[in-house]
Amino acid sequence: MTLQSFHPPRRILMGPGPSDVSPRVLAALSRPTIGHLDPAFQNLMEEIKAALAEVMKAPGYACLPLPAPGTAGMEAAMMNLLEPGDVAVVAVNGQFGERMVDMAGRAGAEVVRVDHDWGTPADPVRVGAALEGRRAKLLAFVHAETSTGTLTRPKPLCDLARAAGALTVVDCVTSLGGVDVDAAGWGADVVYSGTQKCLSAPPGLSPFAMSPKAREAVAARKEKVRNWLLDMSLIMAYWGGEGGRTYHHTAPINALYGLHEALVALLEEGLDAVHARHKRMHGALAAGIEAAGLKFLVAPEHRLPELNAVLVPEGIDEARVRAHMLARYDLEIGAGLGPLRGRIWRIGLMGASATPWHVRLCLVALCDALAAQNYPDASRAALAAAEAALA
Amino acid sequence: MTLQSFHPPRRILMGPGPSDVSPRVLAALSRPTIGHLDPAFQNLMEEIKAALAEVMKAPGYACLPLPAPGTAGMEAAMMNLLEPGDVAVVAVNGQFGERMVDMAGRAGAEVVRVDHDWGTPADPVRVGAALEGRRAKLLAFVHAETSTGTLTRPKPLCDLARAAGALTVVDCVTSLGGVDVDAAGWGADVVYSGTQKCLSAPPGLSPFAMSPKAREAVAARKEKVRNWLLDMSLIMAYWGGEGGRTYHHTAPINALYGLHEALVALLEEGLDAVHARHKRMHGALAAGIEAAGLKFLVAPEHRLPELNAVLVPEGIDEARVRAHMLARYDLEIGAGLGPLRGRIWRIGLMGASATPWHVRLCLVALCDALAAQNYPDASRAALAAAEAALA
Repeated sequence: MTLQSFHPPRRILMGPGPSDVSPRVLAALSRPTIGHLDPAFQNLMEEIKAALAEVMKAPGYACLPLPAPGTAGMEAAMMNLLEPGDVAVVAVNGQFGERMVDMAGRAGAEVVRVDHDWGTPADPVRVGAALEGRRAKLLAFVHAETSTGTLTRPKPLCDLARAAGALTVVDCVTSLGGVDVDAAGWGADVVYSGTQKCLSAPPGLSPFAMSPKAREAVAARKEKVRNWLLDMSLIMAYWGGEGGRTYHHTAPINALYGLHEALVALLEEGLDAVHARHKRMHGALAAGIEAAGLKFLVAPEHRLPELNAVLVPEGIDEARVRAHMLARYDLEIGAGLGPLRGRIWRIGLMGASATPWHVRLCLVALCDALAAQNYPDASRAALAAAEAALA
Repeated sequence: MTLQSFHPPRRILMGPGPSDVSPRVLAALSRPTIGHLDPAFQNLMEEIKAALAEVMKAPGYACLPLPAPGTAGMEAAMMNLLEPGDVAVVAVNGQFGERMVDMAGRAGAEVVRVDHDWGTPADPVRVGAALEGRRAKLLAFVHAETSTGTLTRPKPLCDLARAAGALTVVDCVTSLGGVDVDAAGWGADVVYSGTQKCLSAPPGLSPFAMSPKAREAVAARKEKVRNWLLDMSLIMAYWGGEGGRTYHHTAPINALYGLHEALVALLEEGLDAVHARHKRMHGALAAGIEAAGLKFLVAPEHRLPELNAVLVPEGIDEARVRAHMLARYDLEIGAGLGPLRGRIWRIGLMGASATPWHVRLCLVALCDALAAQNYPDASRAALAAAEAALA
């Protein structure tokens, strides 16, 4: 067969991830590959560990990026902390809570699910009731539900788990770099993320942080972790410590160049400034969305600034809207998942995609696509509202 | 903390992998990220699937790259094909056979190991005896042992397994793109590889091929695969087929750009030409090595052209040799693993590192490093022998 080199079309990424990757991160990806045992690479690994501890606010935690997409963090948490017979309580308020239930079951645990309506945060009262009277090994929940754009406040849930003697696993795939992640402040035991959301690096890695208490739990396991590739004892030995490094897999060198550069950029801008930027862009987008007569799925106090779930108005074909935006503006937004399929759009303002330019382009493209289906033209009003919010 | 951008030092990669990544693959990595649900990306996925089927000679197999380093292929094979109570026969003749034993055990299987001296190929007579009288679910072995540079011929072993009603798993991490991989010709059921060896893309992906019979075995499982991320039923649905694509993880977009470009380059050169180039470079390096008075671990007929295990001469500090080559020539070769630690060097001639330039530089650097430890200077003799072999 003959195969041609691939040259991607221009795309503006405003879906649920991946987000736009900045030119400096793209440039870092293409630096020459060096060996994973090279002294220079080991320095890079140390810098990444230290930077992750800072951005996840996880001093004293074992911090490192797993060599697979964000979901690897979830799997590593479940597979390392759970053994057959353990009880896991999982708060489910979207697709990724559902996935936690599936994975905890595969780890052999007895899973107690606490179901919530999609688009609402996990409820400490109901989660607390589920923990009560059970010797749960862990409580798992999602900080930023990518399927709904909902923020759950972790501190009250982590407090409940600690009181019940359970470890906590907090999914921060879509939160890290968009809103505050404070592993130690929450008292979370495992926090993990992905690179393709607010860190604005390509997908493929999962930053992971594990508390000393979680490490003790892993060390006290009765049987081997079921998956070798994500066995944290082996991975931590590879990422080094006092005793040097022990060969495990071959690290994805160039992907780590990209993550490192994304962390350099994040620390240069500063965590507080980054969070403020996401909040400001969300404010502008939300003002435009509402000026266009559109509504959000999630109540204002529970909305994620970086992921906006917008309800599809009556009579509008949502897929045609996305196709129009992609065809005319090279702009990608996301569809709904599961029970929200066809009912919402998911508009991301993540990392390098959280700029006024993105907000304007998205409002123009969305209003144009709606007008093509005879929705009243709202472009001027939406832009004016966004500019007022930005001013 | 403040963190600076990382700029890797110049390195010539002639260890057991990663190998040198060509400029065209590095350039592909830094093309702008697009969404994993983008129609353009779906075309890329289809091209990668077709190219993998061609280079692995696996028509009719399910072929796709797993989103994690080469070892993910091994784990996916063991975890998808084995269930608790199954019997797995594993031929062990190096580090990666050992790893198969570990993983098969984690999958819950009863593991029968057939041990061989490191540096010798798996022996069909002994493997056949182990299969006899057992209802083994699978036979696993390593085509190209990265820890020793040994080639095992797969066809006789696959024939034995088929006769015994067992599936075969063949580790081709270090063989694909260096020597012939012929999944269908062998009758292998699972073949997997890595990107960082003879494909000369960065580490981080694992090309994987699964026969129709292996797919049936997965479909007939009694319990769920233990790891969700590498559950082949979910991954195959994500990589699409008749029924479209079902969301699973977020594909590592830019890493896949790199793999695609590496496959374009491989198919442009042609598989036969690529194999001939590896063989020719090995011939030149081996001539130089022997002219310098050094010896190989592996008998000539079992040597991998792309990975040369050279015995450390009496009285030479092997780590100092590697350090000298790295410091003076920016050239990385590998050390021995396990029982071969301190006893061999592993010199890779993989993919973009399999050129006359690499052979010359390696011989010069190695002879210089040896001379620094009072080994007789053999640089001229080694170069002359290599040039004669290249002529």
